Amino acid sequence: MEYIDIHSERNFNEFEELYAKLEKREIPDGTTVTVTGCIHRIREMSDFAFVILRTARRLFQCVYEPSKTDFELAAIKEGDYVRLNGVLIVEERSKIGYDFSIRSCEIITSPRFEIPFVLNKAKLDLGLDMKLDYRPLSLRNPSERAVFKISAAIQAGFRKFFAENDFTEIVPPKIVSAGAEGGADMFSVDYFGQNAFLNQSPQTYKQMMVGVFEKVFVMGPVFRAEKSHTNRHITEFQGIDIEMGYINSFEDIMLTEARALRCVFDYVTENCAPELALLNVKLPTFDTIPRVRFSEAKEMVAKQYKREFRSEFDLEPEEEKLIGDLFKKKYGSELVFVTHYPTKKRPFYTMDDPEDPNYTCSFDLLLNGSEITTGGQRIHDYDMQIAKMNRLGMDTSLFESYLMIHKYGIPPHGGLGIGLERFTMKLLKLDNIRLATLFPRDVERLIP
Amino acid sequence: MEYIDIHSERNFNEFEELYAKLEKREIPDGTTVTVTGCIHRIREMSDFAFVILRTARRLFQCVYEPSKTDFELAAIKEGDYVRLNGVLIVEERSKIGYDFSIRSCEIITSPRFEIPFVLNKAKLDLGLDMKLDYRPLSLRNPSERAVFKISAAIQAGFRKFFAENDFTEIVPPKIVSAGAEGGADMFSVDYFGQNAFLNQSPQTYKQMMVGVFEKVFVMGPVFRAEKSHTNRHITEFQGIDIEMGYINSFEDIMLTEARALRCVFDYVTENCAPELALLNVKLPTFDTIPRVRFSEAKEMVAKQYKREFRSEFDLEPEEEKLIGDLFKKKYGSELVFVTHYPTKKRPFYTMDDPEDPNYTCSFDLLLNGSEITTGGQRIHDYDMQIAKMNRLGMDTSLFESYLMIHKYGIPPHGGLGIGLERFTMKLLKLDNIRLATLFPRDVERLIP
Repeated sequence: MEYIDIHSERNFNEFEELYAKLEKREIPDGTTVTVTGCIHRIREMSDFAFVILRTARRLFQCVYEPSKTDFELAAIKEGDYVRLNGVLIVEERSKIGYDFSIRSCEIITSPRFEIPFVLNKAKLDLGLDMKLDYRPLSLRNPSERAVFKISAAIQAGFRKFFAENDFTEIVPPKIVSAGAEGGADMFSVDYFGQNAFLNQSPQTYKQMMVGVFEKVFVMGPVFRAEKSHTNRHITEFQGIDIEMGYINSFEDIMLTEARALRCVFDYVTENCAPELALLNVKLPTFDTIPRVRFSEAKEMVAKQYKREFRSEFDLEPEEEKLIGDLFKKKYGSELVFVTHYPTKKRPFYTMDDPEDPNYTCSFDLLLNGSEITTGGQRIHDYDMQIAKMNRLGMDTSLFESYLMIHKYGIPPHGGLGIGLERFTMKLLKLDNIRLATLFPRDVERLIP
Repeated sequence: MEYIDIHSERNFNEFEELYAKLEKREIPDGTTVTVTGCIHRIREMSDFAFVILRTARRLFQCVYEPSKTDFELAAIKEGDYVRLNGVLIVEERSKIGYDFSIRSCEIITSPRFEIPFVLNKAKLDLGLDMKLDYRPLSLRNPSERAVFKISAAIQAGFRKFFAENDFTEIVPPKIVSAGAEGGADMFSVDYFGQNAFLNQSPQTYKQMMVGVFEKVFVMGPVFRAEKSHTNRHITEFQGIDIEMGYINSFEDIMLTEARALRCVFDYVTENCAPELALLNVKLPTFDTIPRVRFSEAKEMVAKQYKREFRSEFDLEPEEEKLIGDLFKKKYGSELVFVTHYPTKKRPFYTMDDPEDPNYTCSFDLLLNGSEITTGGQRIHDYDMQIAKMNRLGMDTSLFESYLMIHKYGIPPHGGLGIGLERFTMKLLKLDNIRLATLFPRDVERLIP
């Protein structure tokens, strides 16, 4: 019998492991190594050439000298996937403290066609649509790629916080029979002849699971059939959702989010140094986040910018931007919690403020003048929930499973939702959410 | 201005933190503490009572004595959410080394109705349909809940391996214009009047991203509109998918999977001791996994069990079961790699075996006699991919973005896919995949 042995020699981490050792100057001068990657760029100089290798997250400069290598420079070209064998020579003027002098090259595979645009510039000079049409290629540009390395780290950072704080990950269904937010703006699915929908939020499911796991999180797709053409809406996004029981008030949710964000920013800063440098981004560090009531925020902006209210019950995007500006200027914070949104604009599960039922125990978090989180306390009392649904004219029979928690008991609880793509967009100060989405979906775009 | 301060005192981890200290016997005798949870069970004895509190992952036994507590036992009931204040008394005969003697009780919330079945038995005595209909309640039973705590740990264990081995997480779209596996068995979505589908696999997307990140993983929903009524099929499941570049052969994928599984089993064993004990499960430990060719495996089973072949190109579920039995008996392994599946039954992106094009560079992994993984090497050469698609009568124009990687270059690569629910089911030896699915979807079931 033959076996696969987990202790066998093969190792696929070669480059990042090597690079970590280089950064610590642990490799002795003159060591021979093999590096694997794609030839990103060849820069011919008078009597030698730089061959820049693109690996999973680096650009690694190699030196080609005719006298030291056993092949002609013309034998390789940009886009080739290669194994380069060579010698590491200590060189203090080099960024990583070594020169890599090529000895020989094995071409693993060579592309059939040349990429139809210039990939190896620092900034990819391509319009948004071209970038998206050519996603499998445009993301090979290190700056474009960096966004998604950071986006992955944001998810990992959140998970780190969730693990450290005893949140349990749950996987609720995406195909549902009724909508969590009441049913508008949902995509319909033909479910074996039955009409079903793509879920627009894991809201009811995460509330149900508070009764089981106390604190839960979900990271998964959320679908909104909105015909928006803005730079911050897509129809399918990655939701980061939490829900937690035994809260004292919705302030516990804000505190949890503040701590989670601090953990995420620290995690990304620690793990994505090369990508943050490439994009010239420094993440906010903070110990406190200012908070302001919805109505106060509206007044502050009206006063400061001599601006009239239009929508009474919500913040317009322009107002969010101005609140962001104001708090940045006045309190030095890129983040601001806006609390106590009007009852009219919040969904049926939102707990009303006991001191004024026109407002809710809820909040949004703004980052650089744009909403990145909606959260708050939920109703846990059965009669209160039924009364609110009746007031809103909802058919409670569609919510039988959801109402089980109210009927049979659930502790006071609340939570929040974050959209990964919008969060990444705001954090990296990109001007379109599509640049922070691997394969965006909107009214016009369904491919790739 | 008011602020949310991340260093403020509030802490939501109280119980698990306390429990960890109790386990280490770090709490001094006579310490007063408050514990929060749901009253799972009240067991009245002659002159005292046990009040069993259900917390996020424990059953915590508290002692009620009329002489020591300031309330009547009748004031609390099963299902109440409470804060119990009391004293920890060192008691070696107790499982955790302490007795918790109740002093006072604050009822946080009390249910309106009694749960319509007995929740607090060790094993929930309920049929499958009832369990699923009452998911928000039935999962409050510790044994039912344990399955999903382990399922969450399986995901965390995989992510740990991926992070340690430089895999980048990607989030591909679920709404797509064409199918990754050719298009059969897909749910259709009304996408603003356009016909779209729910993706049946992230296959093409993860291959595209090998050219960007070298090694990628996806954890997200996968949809199969199969009208199956078996105990191991659902229409929506959580896929764990990887894809990696610069492989030498599909053996690198098997080795990676073996290492990943070892990491997952170790992680779950380390982090889910109470749940594994509750379910009486011990996870396999292994350093090697036997491997056998598809055709050999078929012959072994035919010979051993005097069984005739029916399907020439695939393994029947019964054959998988017998292979599982055979390898368990003969080689002591619950896991077995079956390699070189017939070309006829593998999808268009599968690399044929250069030594015999009737077979492929692919494998399945069986766990306890059931397939839990399908994987293999993919075609990276443009002409080879086009030729295979033509041979299969596919419309290559639907795969323009996918074929970009073959056209413009991609290193040799391969990967695999695992279904979380089936994996959990087989690992915990459950007899139906629905028991390992939080809210299962099948031909009949769309709620809760």
